Amino acid sequence: MMTERISQQMNFITEIDKQKSIFRQSYLADGSRNENDAEHAWHLALMAIVLGEYSNESIDILKVIKMVLIHDLVEIDAGDTYAYDIKGNEDKYIRESAAAKRIFALLPQDQGKQLYQLWEEFEARETKEAKFAAALDRVQPILLNYLSEGKAWLKHSIARSQVEKRNEHTQEGSETIWNYICSILDSAVEKGYLINK
Amino acid sequence: MMTERISQQMNFITEIDKQKSIFRQSYLADGSRNENDAEHAWHLALMAIVLGEYSNESIDILKVIKMVLIHDLVEIDAGDTYAYDIKGNEDKYIRESAAAKRIFALLPQDQGKQLYQLWEEFEARETKEAKFAAALDRVQPILLNYLSEGKAWLKHSIARSQVEKRNEHTQEGSETIWNYICSILDSAVEKGYLINK
Repeated sequence: MMTERISQQMNFITEIDKQKSIFRQSYLADGSRNENDAEHAWHLALMAIVLGEYSNESIDILKVIKMVLIHDLVEIDAGDTYAYDIKGNEDKYIRESAAAKRIFALLPQDQGKQLYQLWEEFEARETKEAKFAAALDRVQPILLNYLSEGKAWLKHSIARSQVEKRNEHTQEGSETIWNYICSILDSAVEKGYLINK
Repeated sequence: MMTERISQQMNFITEIDKQKSIFRQSYLADGSRNENDAEHAWHLALMAIVLGEYSNESIDILKVIKMVLIHDLVEIDAGDTYAYDIKGNEDKYIRESAAAKRIFALLPQDQGKQLYQLWEEFEARETKEAKFAAALDRVQPILLNYLSEGKAWLKHSIARSQVEKRNEHTQEGSETIWNYICSILDSAVEKGYLINK
């Protein structure tokens, strides 16, 4: 017998399968195709496990992993907004907030509320876990852009200063990861993957 | 300055990007294409969060999540072995064990050892966390096969009894999830997605 509770949970699990069809601007490391949101979230979760030791503050790693696993579910409704799309970023939060309300409400109320709050916490970037999760969310596409020889950066004519400005808050989560990003950017400019300005 | 430690960690993070190009027999819920290992692992991790309450025993959910996130990394070297491929399953453990040794050895020794042990624990299916992780690993492709109207089952002429036999150990991790699987199989036979024998 299926109870109402498990039926709601399975509806949510079915709905989030769509995350695998939301494609991002970043390419896979080998440059073969764009990455999708499910792959990105999986990569971040593993990075949380491996790089958790570089958080500026001591963190609840389970909370960080949950955050990164769910952080892009809103894009099922709201789509991927490119980091350097000024217009798209203006109403991003409004679109994503409506999406979060719909998607997490598929779950039983207790679980839906918990995950919605976790998503809000990630977005607000105020707690130490949210700051570290945001650092991971920044370094991963930079790493992929670098490994795919700047394919996405070159396509959109991105300059080093734009990447630096957009990602400087990474320091709030992890000084070590920020230093790593800076070393990648140095090398990316040298190789001609990023415009030097 | 990049230390040797973070450089090893980033090599591992780069290497595992290949998981996104290992395709499985299961299709996405909408039937549009095959699912890859990274997407599958992400889906399992979210299922662990949502369905963890159905484990037969009280579990360490962080451990389960780590297990499912890493469980298929070995397929980067060993490839995906289809569940009903008898020959391929004969030497599966040997091939995967060699892969685990190589891939986890990219990490600093302490982390590599931890993740290798976690992978072994998942494979042995003896602890309560491994049993529950295995239950998730079973129900997810069954759900996708059902949602994609039996596409993968029909392609390989799979019978209900084969699915039941291969997945019956799901009960050891979760009676509730096993009952859910049985209800899906009933409906799959009724709809002609699985051969009724």
